[in-house]
Amino acid sequence: MTALFNATRDASRILATRTPADIDSILLDLAQATEDNIPALLQANQRDLDSMDTGNPMRDRLMLNDARLRAIAADLRHVAALPSPLGRTLKHSTLPNGLDIERVSVPFGVIGIIFEARPNVCFDCFALCLKAGSACILKGGSDARESCTAIVGLIHSVLQRHGLPAATALLLTDHASTAALLNAHGLVDLIIPRGSSRLIDFVRENARVPVIETGAGVVHTYVDARADMAKAEAIVVNAKTRRVSVCNALDCLIINRERLGELPLLCTQLADKGVTIYADERAYASLAAGGYPAALLQHATPESFGTEFLALRMAVKTVDTLDEALDHIRRYGSGHSEAIVTEDAQAARRFLADVDAACVYHNAPTSFTDGAQFGLGAEIGISTQKLHARGPMALEEITTYKWLIRGNGQTRP
Amino acid sequence: MTALFNATRDASRILATRTPADIDSILLDLAQATEDNIPALLQANQRDLDSMDTGNPMRDRLMLNDARLRAIAADLRHVAALPSPLGRTLKHSTLPNGLDIERVSVPFGVIGIIFEARPNVCFDCFALCLKAGSACILKGGSDARESCTAIVGLIHSVLQRHGLPAATALLLTDHASTAALLNAHGLVDLIIPRGSSRLIDFVRENARVPVIETGAGVVHTYVDARADMAKAEAIVVNAKTRRVSVCNALDCLIINRERLGELPLLCTQLADKGVTIYADERAYASLAAGGYPAALLQHATPESFGTEFLALRMAVKTVDTLDEALDHIRRYGSGHSEAIVTEDAQAARRFLADVDAACVYHNAPTSFTDGAQFGLGAEIGISTQKLHARGPMALEEITTYKWLIRGNGQTRP
Repeated sequence: MTALFNATRDASRILATRTPADIDSILLDLAQATEDNIPALLQANQRDLDSMDTGNPMRDRLMLNDARLRAIAADLRHVAALPSPLGRTLKHSTLPNGLDIERVSVPFGVIGIIFEARPNVCFDCFALCLKAGSACILKGGSDARESCTAIVGLIHSVLQRHGLPAATALLLTDHASTAALLNAHGLVDLIIPRGSSRLIDFVRENARVPVIETGAGVVHTYVDARADMAKAEAIVVNAKTRRVSVCNALDCLIINRERLGELPLLCTQLADKGVTIYADERAYASLAAGGYPAALLQHATPESFGTEFLALRMAVKTVDTLDEALDHIRRYGSGHSEAIVTEDAQAARRFLADVDAACVYHNAPTSFTDGAQFGLGAEIGISTQKLHARGPMALEEITTYKWLIRGNGQTRP
Repeated sequence: MTALFNATRDASRILATRTPADIDSILLDLAQATEDNIPALLQANQRDLDSMDTGNPMRDRLMLNDARLRAIAADLRHVAALPSPLGRTLKHSTLPNGLDIERVSVPFGVIGIIFEARPNVCFDCFALCLKAGSACILKGGSDARESCTAIVGLIHSVLQRHGLPAATALLLTDHASTAALLNAHGLVDLIIPRGSSRLIDFVRENARVPVIETGAGVVHTYVDARADMAKAEAIVVNAKTRRVSVCNALDCLIINRERLGELPLLCTQLADKGVTIYADERAYASLAAGGYPAALLQHATPESFGTEFLALRMAVKTVDTLDEALDHIRRYGSGHSEAIVTEDAQAARRFLADVDAACVYHNAPTSFTDGAQFGLGAEIGISTQKLHARGPMALEEITTYKWLIRGNGQTRP
């Protein structure tokens, strides 16, 4: 395994000598090659699908089809068109002694990505790492082995046409390779796990290489005493139901007791969409009295709070004050995305200042937590840690920097 | 231990409500209190010194005296005078839908520092963390227990005068607390180990909290075929002998074979200062012929390369080409600081581009790798990793950021 990692490290050094234009032409060629090889890619994907139970909920994530592959090709062209994150001057000064000091963005070198059954991650992560000047090690789930092998095979053929080693993108599919990757200190500069919280916990426990944790989001929206309830309804419905399987989806609605009477109205569309609510006592009473469908209404248990549902399910917590809402978020939030709905500027200010999360919203739904929505152009993951990058991570966030110091023989007294 | 960490976490939240002016007044008061309590601080330090063997090389690092304490007070006033790293708008945009997206610098929360026998680290790290809005956990070496306890006691008295809990600065001195600190995921946001490479290796192996590795520097200077030898001499002497115990000190001189004849002249001042040289065959022959003192001249062994000497010792490697110098640095460097001496602009450009290190120098000595020298105003350590911060770390580097999103009821399609 070390020999493979060394080959990728060497490949990263060759890649570092290429210009942004060279890199973009590789991405454009890969987009074309993807469109030209749709039948072969779908055949490989079909072999993975044939091995998976038809009832497995991962099936949709595993599946490629003509439209998805064409969308991937379009994404590759989009990444090629983005500005290069490399070679940016981040600081520049000249000291009194004439020493010129510049901080400039450079590639990490080798980035490892550990993911589960989504073969499109091979395309996404390879493209973003390449654009950021880094070689990548892709550790995919065994469910997607055939698909990933076909995709990375295609990537290799394009790399080699451009005179780059296949090791610029190393695919690992066997389970044992994860431990080797997590221990490859000195050979791998950064590991980004993308997937379940179980995967992320495993990586945190075992990594000796720097890690950026992504993904797990226990997300709250607080409807304040002075909320505009029309906005609140639009925001809550969008945050909860736009896509339930994503990390920015709403998990717990916190409602000020002064607005409890309007809770049933606020939840009308949620009922229509089949959202099961786990309500605390006061909220349960309001929803039951207001006609929330009994089949969708449950009493909250201790487990209802602090849970990432990733489903048409949501907890409701009633609070007396903004402070109580802040305490609840502090206790149960995962530092991903949190929102307040209020017309009270002071309450909004306090919420934005006090909540310790990657993304804090006022009068907007947490569904906006996304690299493309934030105008970053692309996204390799959403960081839930504070080191290096927080929230949506795009190309700049997968570069590092170095200091260049240019002198003329000056010495330090 | 968890109760202590929780108290520090709570303290960090109270600290987050204070203004930069509040923080600066704490630092100024601490400077005054330090000057007012010099006798008590020296008494505590004397108890530590009394417990240490008189021949222990750590003794100088452990020792406080009147001048050192006054210099510390001056440093505290200097940190108070620096601009706050908090509340800086790092990005700001308004999306077409009117959503306002701002990325703003905020405190980490709780920063852990693990250090060895230098009690002044208590002052430095407390001051920098406080200025950056974070509470700190200081795990000091047991050799400095009495000194650290007295210093942190003084810090506590000042904090409490300003209405902040003592837990804003938590001191740990027993060895067992290190493991608890390294595992305090969710309570501690960042750990910075400061000390020997053994300490840093231990932290990397055992931490479940994000870490920034600091310190270990295997540092090279390459004297190119087209070097100005007067500059080369000044640069090499400054890099090797200015302070031998620091991480930016030169460990290995790489010399192009075309300049081997001038090696003895280049090393004249090193001989005067008593630098022992571990020379490869060609360099040994040149130095011996040129009269380098026999008592200070040894044949290089495999261990001579890749070693951080932290002493008046240095390896010399002869190369035929710039490429060979780059290979040597790639193999043996630790990614800290590397320098080229040359009048050849193209060789300089290649060296600056190709060397993968935090600080890469052209015609200047690596002794400049230092936060204050780089104009950063202060330094909490020199990062040798690529994640988050690389090279000298100052106040900005010990902050994180969050995204603030302000809307008016917009939803995501």
